[in-house]
Amino acid sequence: MKIALDAMGSDYGPQNLVDGAILAIKKLRMEVVLIGKQDVLSEILRKRNFRNSRLSIIDAAEVVGMHDAPKESLRKKNSSVYVATQLVHHGEAHGLVSAGNTGATLASTLRIWRTLHGISRPAIATLMPTQKQPVVLLDVGANVDCKPRHLFDFAIMGAVYARDILNRPDPRVGLLSIGEEASKGNEQTFGAFKLLERSTLNFRGNAEGRDIVTGAFDVVVCDGFIGNIVLKFGEAVAKMILHSLKGELSKNVISYLGALAMAPAFESFKKRIDYSEYGGAPLLGLNSVCIICHGESSPKAIMNAIRVAAEFVNHNVNDHILEELRSNPHNDTLNNFVAKGKSPEFSNHSIITPERTAPKK
Amino acid sequence: MKIALDAMGSDYGPQNLVDGAILAIKKLRMEVVLIGKQDVLSEILRKRNFRNSRLSIIDAAEVVGMHDAPKESLRKKNSSVYVATQLVHHGEAHGLVSAGNTGATLASTLRIWRTLHGISRPAIATLMPTQKQPVVLLDVGANVDCKPRHLFDFAIMGAVYARDILNRPDPRVGLLSIGEEASKGNEQTFGAFKLLERSTLNFRGNAEGRDIVTGAFDVVVCDGFIGNIVLKFGEAVAKMILHSLKGELSKNVISYLGALAMAPAFESFKKRIDYSEYGGAPLLGLNSVCIICHGESSPKAIMNAIRVAAEFVNHNVNDHILEELRSNPHNDTLNNFVAKGKSPEFSNHSIITPERTAPKK
Repeated sequence: MKIALDAMGSDYGPQNLVDGAILAIKKLRMEVVLIGKQDVLSEILRKRNFRNSRLSIIDAAEVVGMHDAPKESLRKKNSSVYVATQLVHHGEAHGLVSAGNTGATLASTLRIWRTLHGISRPAIATLMPTQKQPVVLLDVGANVDCKPRHLFDFAIMGAVYARDILNRPDPRVGLLSIGEEASKGNEQTFGAFKLLERSTLNFRGNAEGRDIVTGAFDVVVCDGFIGNIVLKFGEAVAKMILHSLKGELSKNVISYLGALAMAPAFESFKKRIDYSEYGGAPLLGLNSVCIICHGESSPKAIMNAIRVAAEFVNHNVNDHILEELRSNPHNDTLNNFVAKGKSPEFSNHSIITPERTAPKK
Repeated sequence: MKIALDAMGSDYGPQNLVDGAILAIKKLRMEVVLIGKQDVLSEILRKRNFRNSRLSIIDAAEVVGMHDAPKESLRKKNSSVYVATQLVHHGEAHGLVSAGNTGATLASTLRIWRTLHGISRPAIATLMPTQKQPVVLLDVGANVDCKPRHLFDFAIMGAVYARDILNRPDPRVGLLSIGEEASKGNEQTFGAFKLLERSTLNFRGNAEGRDIVTGAFDVVVCDGFIGNIVLKFGEAVAKMILHSLKGELSKNVISYLGALAMAPAFESFKKRIDYSEYGGAPLLGLNSVCIICHGESSPKAIMNAIRVAAEFVNHNVNDHILEELRSNPHNDTLNNFVAKGKSPEFSNHSIITPERTAPKK
């Protein structure tokens, strides 16, 4: 199993990415191809004194910055992410891992791989910690202004992810809304509710904001606008609470001593909510496998992402998504639109804004 | 200053509400009128051995349950919330406090008081704890499927609230979205951004999910669908984290002892994020003052809500909202619609679903 690693797109430079690849080769016996500036990557490997037949480098002269717009990024045909996506497209690697600009990764994979037949919009799925086992939340940022059918497709993709990768045999699917009753929601969720209700999925109705963390659902689906806000808000609340508690602790000697004694418990808790344990966020709905990592990913997080990418390939997640779609047929206008082979009807105002057709040479 | 207290709508029965009224009379020298079942309320006062000329009771034979639909609740003309709303409407009290069914409170105040001239949809504002001072988040549940103009009105109302009640002289207003750049968002926020940009408000652009808790904004506006999810999710995340930390603490003797030493710091922190300190969530945009409390409110929370209701009256918040609206004129179709005196154009699928016109007798 060979995974392509976009080695240039980390907030901390390529060191963490290369170290993650080394961990994956040593611990997981994986094959990894690093894509990026050959001289930079070779130099890091030389310093690490690491040579292994399962590690190779493919040169990519350009780099997509964190602030490059997706549309701009597509013009950089020699960027690490574009070259890596091409590599997977041509079968020279089985999947892609990137810790770079998410919009650029989405744009290049969407352009080169295209969406799975029947899926009009890919989605980014993330794992959120709950009181019990983690829940799959999607979409968390690939789409805005979704139609009910998009949320339905997210539910299919999230359920297959939960079943194949997280070993939840019959994943409980919830639709993020403002009340448990079917009568609570907005135009978007009312439509999605009707589609989910008559699907083969184990649909458990609306999930309220609080239900995301109770562990009552295995998959929670929402518009990427909301999922993105929830994700960033949740991370910030967790950080604020831990920070505030530390502030309170330093206020007097007794509680400071208490804090010292409690340090292991704090660490254990932080590990529970540590996203790096989960190994990145899969980009679902495309004709290959891509795992997106945080720009601040540690080597361990990168290794876990490589592991998850391999699991997606091994478990044939995409085939199972296609099977689920066939079990839940639909022949609405959206489906026809996709079936005719047009490119996905991304809003111009999506987080990513890929061009609708390939640029003319 | 006389405040009407809907005394029947608490999760714990009327005791906490009556005790809250007693606190407000003793500590704040307020005048309170309790609306509810005369015999039940008199009996509680007798047990408390409390008599005061500033406390009165008005009988209301019916009670709106927590699960009554807003539309149904409007048929109960003798319910505590309906009678209390009428009382304020007729000038026999200056404002209303309710810990009951939010949808029913919204329905009766909207029906009887109507919206302020120029406002088509009322909004529920809540205070969220941040790393610094609390931020006003609105709407958190009165509206879904908002138009850009509604978000703009929420910004006006939130800014006046922050200025008049929270003493923020020039409140920094943010628009909840998925990126800082003006180019990030959905159709709704793009429209709202344009309106806010050319307003007299201190508009600071988009606020991301994480910005809700950084303290970089005084007011954050959003669709009630999103605000409601964020509010419930935030409460649940905070609870989960504190619960998980306690779980970790009980795992060994050392950290358990540490936890004992830390207890005061925990309490101090919990107080910081304790909503009861803030005194409820104002319902903004109506022709009178209404403060909504949590169904689990303590007597202290009720007292604080009564205090805040009085502050809204004393500071002429509604007059200031009308002034701000005049400084930011608009003559779009929505405004014309409202100006013609039609009832607010609530979606049938809003959280509350008041009837569009008064029922025929």
